[in-house]
Amino acid sequence: MLTAISMSAIATNGVVPAGGSYYMISRSLGPEFGGAVGICFYLGTTFAGAMYILGCIEILLIYIVPQAAIFKIEGLEGPEAEAALLNNMRVYGTIVLSFMALVVFVGVKYVNKLALVFLACVILSILSVYAGVIKTAIDPPVFPVCLLGNRTLLSKGYDVCAKVIEIDNETVTTKLWRSFCDSEYLNATCDEYFNNNNVTEIQGIPGVTSGILAENLFGNYLEKGMILEKRGLASDVDPDSPTTNSNRYVLADITSFFTLLVGIYFPSVTGIMAGSNRSGDLRDAQKSIPIGTIAAISTTSTVYMSCVVLFGACIEGVVLRDKFGEGVSGNLVIGTLAWPSPWVIVFGSFFSTCGAGLQSLTGAPRLLQAISRDGIIPFLRIFGHGKANGEPTWALLLTASICEIGIIIASLDAVAPILSMFFLMCYMFVNLACALQTLLRTPNWRPRFKFYHWALSFLGMSLCLSLMFMCSWYYAIVAMGIATCIYKYIEFCGAEKEWGDGIRGISLSAARFALMRLEEGPPHTKNWRPQILVLVSMDAEQNIEQPRLLSLTNQLKAGKGLTIVGTCVQGTFLDNYTDAHKADQSLRKLMETEKVKGFTQVVISSNLRDGTSHLIQVGGLGGLKHNTVMVSWPRNWKQPECHQEFRNFIEVVRETTIASIALLVPKNISSYPSNGERFTEGHIDVWWVVHDGGMLMLLPFLLRQHKVWRKCKMRIFTVAQMDDNSIQMKKDLLTFLYHLRIDAVVEVVEMHDGDISAYTYEKTLIMEQRSQILKQMHLTKNEMEREIQSITDSSRGSIRRKNPSALRSQRSAEEGGGAAEKLEEEPGAVSNPKQVQLSHSKNVSTPTSPTSPTSPAAPAGGAVARPDNKGAEKEKSLLTATPEAGKDFFNMKPEWENLNQTDVRRMHTAMRLNEVITKKSKEAKLVLLNMPGPPKNRVGEENYMEFLEVLTEGLNRVLLVRGGGREVITIYS
Amino acid sequence: MLTAISMSAIATNGVVPAGGSYYMISRSLGPEFGGAVGICFYLGTTFAGAMYILGCIEILLIYIVPQAAIFKIEGLEGPEAEAALLNNMRVYGTIVLSFMALVVFVGVKYVNKLALVFLACVILSILSVYAGVIKTAIDPPVFPVCLLGNRTLLSKGYDVCAKVIEIDNETVTTKLWRSFCDSEYLNATCDEYFNNNNVTEIQGIPGVTSGILAENLFGNYLEKGMILEKRGLASDVDPDSPTTNSNRYVLADITSFFTLLVGIYFPSVTGIMAGSNRSGDLRDAQKSIPIGTIAAISTTSTVYMSCVVLFGACIEGVVLRDKFGEGVSGNLVIGTLAWPSPWVIVFGSFFSTCGAGLQSLTGAPRLLQAISRDGIIPFLRIFGHGKANGEPTWALLLTASICEIGIIIASLDAVAPILSMFFLMCYMFVNLACALQTLLRTPNWRPRFKFYHWALSFLGMSLCLSLMFMCSWYYAIVAMGIATCIYKYIEFCGAEKEWGDGIRGISLSAARFALMRLEEGPPHTKNWRPQILVLVSMDAEQNIEQPRLLSLTNQLKAGKGLTIVGTCVQGTFLDNYTDAHKADQSLRKLMETEKVKGFTQVVISSNLRDGTSHLIQVGGLGGLKHNTVMVSWPRNWKQPECHQEFRNFIEVVRETTIASIALLVPKNISSYPSNGERFTEGHIDVWWVVHDGGMLMLLPFLLRQHKVWRKCKMRIFTVAQMDDNSIQMKKDLLTFLYHLRIDAVVEVVEMHDGDISAYTYEKTLIMEQRSQILKQMHLTKNEMEREIQSITDSSRGSIRRKNPSALRSQRSAEEGGGAAEKLEEEPGAVSNPKQVQLSHSKNVSTPTSPTSPTSPAAPAGGAVARPDNKGAEKEKSLLTATPEAGKDFFNMKPEWENLNQTDVRRMHTAMRLNEVITKKSKEAKLVLLNMPGPPKNRVGEENYMEFLEVLTEGLNRVLLVRGGGREVITIYS
Repeated sequence: MLTAISMSAIATNGVVPAGGSYYMISRSLGPEFGGAVGICFYLGTTFAGAMYILGCIEILLIYIVPQAAIFKIEGLEGPEAEAALLNNMRVYGTIVLSFMALVVFVGVKYVNKLALVFLACVILSILSVYAGVIKTAIDPPVFPVCLLGNRTLLSKGYDVCAKVIEIDNETVTTKLWRSFCDSEYLNATCDEYFNNNNVTEIQGIPGVTSGILAENLFGNYLEKGMILEKRGLASDVDPDSPTTNSNRYVLADITSFFTLLVGIYFPSVTGIMAGSNRSGDLRDAQKSIPIGTIAAISTTSTVYMSCVVLFGACIEGVVLRDKFGEGVSGNLVIGTLAWPSPWVIVFGSFFSTCGAGLQSLTGAPRLLQAISRDGIIPFLRIFGHGKANGEPTWALLLTASICEIGIIIASLDAVAPILSMFFLMCYMFVNLACALQTLLRTPNWRPRFKFYHWALSFLGMSLCLSLMFMCSWYYAIVAMGIATCIYKYIEFCGAEKEWGDGIRGISLSAARFALMRLEEGPPHTKNWRPQILVLVSMDAEQNIEQPRLLSLTNQLKAGKGLTIVGTCVQGTFLDNYTDAHKADQSLRKLMETEKVKGFTQVVISSNLRDGTSHLIQVGGLGGLKHNTVMVSWPRNWKQPECHQEFRNFIEVVRETTIASIALLVPKNISSYPSNGERFTEGHIDVWWVVHDGGMLMLLPFLLRQHKVWRKCKMRIFTVAQMDDNSIQMKKDLLTFLYHLRIDAVVEVVEMHDGDISAYTYEKTLIMEQRSQILKQMHLTKNEMEREIQSITDSSRGSIRRKNPSALRSQRSAEEGGGAAEKLEEEPGAVSNPKQVQLSHSKNVSTPTSPTSPTSPAAPAGGAVARPDNKGAEKEKSLLTATPEAGKDFFNMKPEWENLNQTDVRRMHTAMRLNEVITKKSKEAKLVLLNMPGPPKNRVGEENYMEFLEVLTEGLNRVLLVRGGGREVITIYS
Repeated sequence: MLTAISMSAIATNGVVPAGGSYYMISRSLGPEFGGAVGICFYLGTTFAGAMYILGCIEILLIYIVPQAAIFKIEGLEGPEAEAALLNNMRVYGTIVLSFMALVVFVGVKYVNKLALVFLACVILSILSVYAGVIKTAIDPPVFPVCLLGNRTLLSKGYDVCAKVIEIDNETVTTKLWRSFCDSEYLNATCDEYFNNNNVTEIQGIPGVTSGILAENLFGNYLEKGMILEKRGLASDVDPDSPTTNSNRYVLADITSFFTLLVGIYFPSVTGIMAGSNRSGDLRDAQKSIPIGTIAAISTTSTVYMSCVVLFGACIEGVVLRDKFGEGVSGNLVIGTLAWPSPWVIVFGSFFSTCGAGLQSLTGAPRLLQAISRDGIIPFLRIFGHGKANGEPTWALLLTASICEIGIIIASLDAVAPILSMFFLMCYMFVNLACALQTLLRTPNWRPRFKFYHWALSFLGMSLCLSLMFMCSWYYAIVAMGIATCIYKYIEFCGAEKEWGDGIRGISLSAARFALMRLEEGPPHTKNWRPQILVLVSMDAEQNIEQPRLLSLTNQLKAGKGLTIVGTCVQGTFLDNYTDAHKADQSLRKLMETEKVKGFTQVVISSNLRDGTSHLIQVGGLGGLKHNTVMVSWPRNWKQPECHQEFRNFIEVVRETTIASIALLVPKNISSYPSNGERFTEGHIDVWWVVHDGGMLMLLPFLLRQHKVWRKCKMRIFTVAQMDDNSIQMKKDLLTFLYHLRIDAVVEVVEMHDGDISAYTYEKTLIMEQRSQILKQMHLTKNEMEREIQSITDSSRGSIRRKNPSALRSQRSAEEGGGAAEKLEEEPGAVSNPKQVQLSHSKNVSTPTSPTSPTSPAAPAGGAVARPDNKGAEKEKSLLTATPEAGKDFFNMKPEWENLNQTDVRRMHTAMRLNEVITKKSKEAKLVLLNMPGPPKNRVGEENYMEFLEVLTEGLNRVLLVRGGGREVITIYS
């Protein structure tokens, strides 16, 4: 019923062409599921056809014309009789099948006409049962059953239901006596049970008015060989002594249990989908399928249930039990009730099984044809063709052949359960399809049939699945195995059909749902992944100018984050739509070549700078927004024709700084390795001048996950001021790296303050923090925890830039004192009026300061905070504060910003730094370096570029890195 | 072992402060899971502490100083003895607990020192077992066991292991005899089994060299009350007669089975996490946890396993069985092997249980403190505080109290299994956390411990879960129920902690994966949902000017698609970052008010037109790209100050047309209903002038899903040319709507061709198609299917605009002929040279023609195609062809485009249409109307606006709709 409801909902959601349930499943769940379930369902229907034909032959040979048997059954016993019956069924089955196939071939018209005849027979036989029931009330039939104690006796074992009879006033023993005793005399030794119990005769069909229903209401299951006993009758039996003469009693011929009964009942309702298979032939499938299916299931259920109730109300349990369980013809127990004649039932059953076989032979080829026409299974393609009038000739031929196999097997008991599994699986998927569509609620899900609900479908699905495993878990697994094989085969054949299946709908909903969830806030440091927006430029033919940018992106993919490749096409939207499309295509192509999985975004803009700016602003969506921009160094920026490119670059640096997005600038990108290259040795060198959120540490780690860089060793060079304790610093850094679980060689390079002023002018605090991080490592856990308490309580939110020199002197003082002293001093330092004043006069808070307390690098107070939600809050408040801070930021100036260009060349700081770097990292495969903040004014722009040029001169591959103002790496688990 | 591996991986992935497994789970799987599992684990540890204390008291009272019992046990039997023992345990347990709590309170330092003492005892007792084993090889101990037949006799039932003994050459019966016979004389009647079997005495501990191991190797499980039998010994027993005198034999005192043995073994290894609970106190948790845990688990396993093997190698099975199963003190069976004295084992066990109790009392408060400090469970907050030195005083108090409850219960057998469940659940989640983190592979997942794998963790997780259900499915469910309650409570308390848990990582990965999947191609018509980009404009204070746009969006949300609300802020990125942020905030606020779930995108641009254009171009990501743009009608477009706005609007219309994006323009947006209003009656009127992908049909359906519009009826007005058969047209349209499952009243309005020329100039084909769709409904299924074959084969891809008049005449001809004629004519029409020429001269293919053959509206040939993949292909080729077509499109001109503005007012077509619309739809709640294509040139722009103004004059709410060039609605299921 639940399946019928689900199917009705799907069928009324638009036109259902040929294929019925296959069509519904394949269009809702995709070709793989549809094909797998469809083929299984096809096999199920076909073999069911064979079973119907065999059943109808069985009725014919056993009840109607036993004399027609070619292999005589009479006189044979046991296996021989069975073999003879099977042979008869094979011969007659083949004949009937051929005839049926012919009828179907000639035309579905005749099938439909025959169906009416068969239907009439079925209705007639049902009516005869009802008539019989009424008759029992008026005139119960004579149907005597003989009991010994409470045990039912075999009818062939007695002629008179008594131990002895009086003939001429003389007591004579009966046939029954003789079968239980060793002689016919009254003093014979008899069976113990026979002696102790009386013989009674009862009416097997006491009729509907006898009130037998109450007695039959609660049954229990018998095991094979158990004796049928009438409840309520006395039975004197010694529990210790074994049962003797059990062949004289009626025994249960099979072990019955709930699932077996379900298994017997179930095939009688598999017909509900017979009609839907022929959906292609229906005038209005949308109307017929719901009405037909629900009517069929209701009628079938009602008829079956009422039959069961009527039997229970009319017939003694012992009789029912005796007759039950004889397989297909077991249904003929109904005959005992039929009025005016049991033959009505016999013929009714014969015609209904016959009709069911014909229906299967009509429906199955149409189903096969529908599957074949979709072309999801290449070798079935031939079965898609049909006669001129659309009849599926080839499919019919195959179906008949498979059916013939079933008939030749004849004894289908072993195969039968798996067919039920196929049917159940099909029902399960119909339910699943309905539940899925309902839950996804696409606008195009508008079934005209309104009485569905996803919970009902889900329940139906669960019931089908449970029934499969309850009936026989191994057959369930076999059936699922077969379906999986077909699924995989279709997948292997690469059926890339787009039928608008729900799987895609799920993706859409999942993507939307997941993105909405991500919206809630910026990710925690632990979840930080590089989500890279790669800005590439295109040449006139819309080819990518720096393909190696994508190679580098691929090599960073251990980050498992998002990749967006964006580019900007100059022009108006109306005129340059083609170019944009071309650019998009070439981006996709290159991404495929470089194995970069991600998205493309092409923007057409009247000027490149606006376009790029907008990409940085609105690229990505919700939680899938880029947090890192990668752009290559403008190689020929000094040439006037590349002026635009150079200005654009500076703008990108500025915008990422304001928007708190990290920036990666590979210099000399064309010399970067392709994905195929393998470095067998060498180093990745990091110049950790200032702490900038940990990007510098993380990037080499990510690169080394890729084959290209796997064999490279990581070295970290950190710059110490002359007055730093560089030995301690190295030790501290090693501890820090240990906690970061990063494997690297550490080297401390001493330099004068001025040499790194380009960095420190904006990052003094960060520089200080770096030292603080390292110092933290000395504190014991307990001290750290106490510190957390005091600092998160007292200095919460009081993050401000301190005067570098003041801080430095403070730090020196701390180095002298112990950790305990430091604790005293720390809150004091924050509230020291002089220092605060200093920080007001010369420094402002910077948007790029990595103040997230989620890592030890974070608290300005120089302590390690617990990685808790306070971090997120603080971070948020910082981010919201960013815009204001952004403006102030540009009011600061490094010393070199006012110089003119020629001076820069000789600028001490860049040359000095470059000297040190080239000395150490000349041979490195890659050098990572902090990128200083962007210049404020036009003059500064060229100096800035020149500074970086000088800084990186003589190095082959340089990756300039600027953090996004947040920690990306944490020592916490 | 698997759990230890998972835990090691998590523990070495950074610093683990106090809380151990709780910390790991909560930081990996979020506060809810962490809290639920943490509390359960805390309860488990605390009650385990109580059990350890009780166990240690039991050893004390039974083995060491039985005379110390306050409630005397001696002389009592059965329940009374048990009650006395329990009372003793309660008294002593409380004393021991108080002492232990005191030790813990004084300082963890002393606990650690005591731990060393306890460890020494344990090692000593283990060594004594090994020593004992060696000793048995040299000098097996005397440990006689008396057997009758193969049955072990109770030792208290005999003094001499014989039936009779010879005293002074006289045969005297023994105590054993008397217990089996009715008198002490030799002719007494005796037990049958006693008569038939001999008495033998064997050595219970034959020693390691005796080869007893082989006999013990394969055991079988006994049920309670079964007699212990030695294998290999003869036993003469009558199978039928019942066992008598069974109280003389040693019986199995519990039913044993595999899971029970697991249950007995399991608590002995729960200690592996004891150390990790105290992670906060460890100097380097990252090193200690892996080493400690793995060492502990390895040692424990090895010791246990080797003990089991050694016992098997030394002791008779009957002895082992006899001693086994006495609960906690059952471990003292080890004592039988110990050398030099069993007391070593007794004391060892005493101290080890004592130590375990102390460890639990130390670990549990720290765990509770860690949970409390996180503040996820508000009422636990007080337990987060500690003494000055960080010791968790309050938590210790609570732990001791809970522990005391356990001791007062004393008989913990009923509670014990649930504790194992808590432990197993904790292990399961540790495994899950590791598996999840490994699979997500965030860059911050870099455990220093390398020997982990997600499959191992997954296996561990599955084993934990299986073990839970294997041991006791109801306790498993109870434990999970408890955990779920805590989970829900924490969720209810609203713990919005951001700890960077993996759940967020899953969202990110899911979003990325789902979006990647969607990338593959445009969605099928069946999956089409309105994915709306709402373009709003902001005033100077960055407030939304048309808030009702979002109300309308909400009312359309039955589409369940994506919503992006975009706006553009004028200015430069550097200067207007604050404004943009403000705008974003007010967008979010309004979206929350209007209950619109979606994303915001704010772009800062130097000019609004560019900004809007870029939003349309790059808004959304991958498969989550908008397919519909909603923008409100520029109300005051005629005023010079709004000129920019008006130009911008026209640009949007043009761009959406080119980019194949649908456009919704609500006019008079301020009069639209808010989400709170409810229309109790009225109509939604659709003026279906041309077929434009079905948006006009779908939108009212979507609106009617919302409460505001639920009670409105839908009416469709279709415009027929004078020469159309309007009665037939209405009938056809009703059939079409029936197949679309849309409920509407249909009215056909006859008009002259010229009156709708504004639409038809670009949509003649579509107009034709509309008629074709309706005509299709006449064809029977079979005819349709044949048609599909012929048309998809022959006219595939030949989609071109036909000459309107030619087509019309063709259609008239078709109307005269039958479907069969039509079939002949159709391919001919396409290849007719004259028509093709015409189509070249006057028409071009249009990008907006809805030519997707996935719906019956689709094929230009006028036939219904099967909804298969050909559609997708065709669609694709069309989309790729779009850019070129876009250009041509603007070369066409409707008649009115060249008029000047004053003429337009009097323009016949607009006024005439308006007249008809106002006549019919004056009172409608909403009027939906096709929107004509945008004008090509500047002059046309004002005329276009004027045309629409005139067209919609006198109507209250108008929604102008322009399709996105694809079908959005399908009749197929």
